[in-house]
Amino acid sequence: MLKERWNELADVKDELANRDWFMGTSGNLAIKVSDHPLHFFVTASGKDKRKRTDEDFLLVDEFGHPVEQTHLKPSAETLLHVEIYRKTNAGCSLHVHTIDNNVISEIYGDQGEVTFKGQELIKAFDMWEEDATLKIPIIRNDAHIPTLAAKFSEQISGDTGAVLIRNHGITVWGKTAFEAKKILEASEFLFRYQLRLLEHKPYQII
Amino acid sequence: MLKERWNELADVKDELANRDWFMGTSGNLAIKVSDHPLHFFVTASGKDKRKRTDEDFLLVDEFGHPVEQTHLKPSAETLLHVEIYRKTNAGCSLHVHTIDNNVISEIYGDQGEVTFKGQELIKAFDMWEEDATLKIPIIRNDAHIPTLAAKFSEQISGDTGAVLIRNHGITVWGKTAFEAKKILEASEFLFRYQLRLLEHKPYQII
Amino acid sequence: MLKERWNELADVKDELANRDWFMGTSGNLAIKVSDHPLHFFVTASGKDKRKRTDEDFLLVDEFGHPVEQTHLKPSAETLLHVEIYRKTNAGCSLHVHTIDNNVISEIYGDQGEVTFKGQELIKAFDMWEEDATLKIPIIRNDAHIPTLAAKFSEQISGDTGAVLIRNHGITVWGKTAFEAKKILEASEFLFRYQLRLLEHKPYQII
Amino acid sequence: MLKERWNELADVKDELANRDWFMGTSGNLAIKVSDHPLHFFVTASGKDKRKRTDEDFLLVDEFGHPVEQTHLKPSAETLLHVEIYRKTNAGCSLHVHTIDNNVISEIYGDQGEVTFKGQELIKAFDMWEEDATLKIPIIRNDAHIPTLAAKFSEQISGDTGAVLIRNHGITVWGKTAFEAKKILEASEFLFRYQLRLLEHKPYQII
Repeated sequence: MLKERWNELADVKDELANRDWFMGTSGNLAIKVSDHPLHFFVTASGKDKRKRTDEDFLLVDEFGHPVEQTHLKPSAETLLHVEIYRKTNAGCSLHVHTIDNNVISEIYGDQGEVTFKGQELIKAFDMWEEDATLKIPIIRNDAHIPTLAAKFSEQISGDTGAVLIRNHGITVWGKTAFEAKKILEASEFLFRYQLRLLEHKPYQII
Repeated sequence: MLKERWNELADVKDELANRDWFMGTSGNLAIKVSDHPLHFFVTASGKDKRKRTDEDFLLVDEFGHPVEQTHLKPSAETLLHVEIYRKTNAGCSLHVHTIDNNVISEIYGDQGEVTFKGQELIKAFDMWEEDATLKIPIIRNDAHIPTLAAKFSEQISGDTGAVLIRNHGITVWGKTAFEAKKILEASEFLFRYQLRLLEHKPYQII
Repeated sequence: MLKERWNELADVKDELANRDWFMGTSGNLAIKVSDHPLHFFVTASGKDKRKRTDEDFLLVDEFGHPVEQTHLKPSAETLLHVEIYRKTNAGCSLHVHTIDNNVISEIYGDQGEVTFKGQELIKAFDMWEEDATLKIPIIRNDAHIPTLAAKFSEQISGDTGAVLIRNHGITVWGKTAFEAKKILEASEFLFRYQLRLLEHKPYQII
Repeated sequence: MLKERWNELADVKDELANRDWFMGTSGNLAIKVSDHPLHFFVTASGKDKRKRTDEDFLLVDEFGHPVEQTHLKPSAETLLHVEIYRKTNAGCSLHVHTIDNNVISEIYGDQGEVTFKGQELIKAFDMWEEDATLKIPIIRNDAHIPTLAAKFSEQISGDTGAVLIRNHGITVWGKTAFEAKKILEASEFLFRYQLRLLEHKPYQII
């Protein structure tokens, strides 16, 4: 099972790396391997995410500490993944920086959220009504990770979800790696759509 | 023949997936395998379109129902493909969400169509006169698929064509997979061209 | 030698296809194989340029007619390539549609040319002075290919060069396939640079 | 060791070429192989950087002259790399033209620098304070390379860094190829972010 989860996460990493979604070694990924005790794989700090190696991930516990002795350091933002697994039944969580999610987080940052409506892609969030409204919260970026993790935690609800950190990328989660990736892709689609639309309909209310 | 059609559709899927044209598991594809009775392959619901598996497509009939017993579910929008094969001699139909086709559908949505003229690429639609005008209809997105399919059906004419659904992607069809793909690529080229041009010539009439 | 030239052109085709520079089966390529008589390979009409097959190109003469009996049809724009090989020592010529070259051709179309200055990339055109000015002519698109070829011919000078046809892509040539590709890439770089710059410095004079 | 460095540089070249960051044969790369005497590999002039061959790089000394007899010519901008290895402990340096870095260099060229603040990605430059400010200098492009190298040299400080040359790309360096690439990617991310943001918040002060 460990190997299976590892490969699942490595496949997601390859796919996102291929889209250049880990520029400047940014981004980090996690996948749960057990509930009792809570153990999950998380990306090791400072690795080139375009390469696939045996040191890409390490196993950490409910405090984000390595389960076994290792020279690898868990990603600086491991605490955000910890919050997700503590509060939900999510099985996978992804933190990714793209131009689009950073720009959206800055443009709508003062409002504390960005809203989407009438766009077919919001069905990826399991919203099927014709006038369903999707709100993605945007929190302030705090350089102190435990503080950031605490604020991030307040926005977590449900086994799938997405939270933007201002100028610091998006974090998404889902019950499986497939679902987390679906949420991520749908979010990125909506962000880019919104930015392109604003260029042509600058005064529309959303 | 079945295997041949399957592979043809799988190749198209791979190519479009490579362009990231199935974000958030959006999009669906179909290819006809027989006229009497009307049978066609259509994408199974909820699959990762970047992977190539034996469960990517299933065979459905003129009502969009699976021809054989299967645990696979036909794509939610199978009824749109049904309408195409009922009303035309098309052999392949593709439904794809891109940023560009969604933005175009929103910008020109109130007009009910988008018009292209004087652009070489409209020759892909078999229009060769120097002042030929291409009109792509834009219909309202209806969350109730049978209603959507009925409205979509009104816009179908000819063995090749393209219809935009507002904020819900484009559906194209052609006599072969190659032709359907050509119509799709030419449409996407024209959409992106139009959006870029509008940024620089905002007041032009089209 | 024939095989060598074929492969050289096929490699260029693969590379440009990979960038999605042949949308909707647009574009055509040629490479010279002999001067006396003038023979060159040119893309066959109506092929999928993302695939590499034995029917991608055919050999034509100084009138653009097939040298051997074949079921293949030379690209509709073969006459433009003929003009290049008749008037220069070019060994390779490429005709490509991109969003950027089409938008540039429309924005600067009324001026009949687009001008670049103070941009390092113009060195690809063998211009090394600090205040060198590169002018790329833009001609009217004529649906009648012989008329278009005649107008195109007036703009040909030198063994490397580039000409835009309004809303109908760019044609470049060079002594070798490598050189033609260099001119094409530098042109596309300059076009996209210019469009992006105009978004931020709309009133600058160029 | 020589072979190892060669491969490291060739891997970086492949990766950047894959992103189309060497359009029109622009760009050049270097990696140090020894300090005493100062020897480094640098890209040979006039090569297709999308191909991987035995003639992609050659060994040069502290004056940028080939160490062994060769028909290969060091890249025209080798002197810029020389300045980096003379003044710092950098092990790798990359000079790359992208649309984004050229547009940024032109927009902020008169100010002589571009400033970034409050963006998570500046941590790639080892700046961790919440209100850290990153300044990337922009120097005038001089067609005379020794003059350009002298001006460039004035901006070099520290074992990692980045300098823009107006309309002539960016040069970055780091202690290793991995670090130089990280600086390059983070810079490009920030440039594109800035350009997209300016489209939506044109009057913001940065």
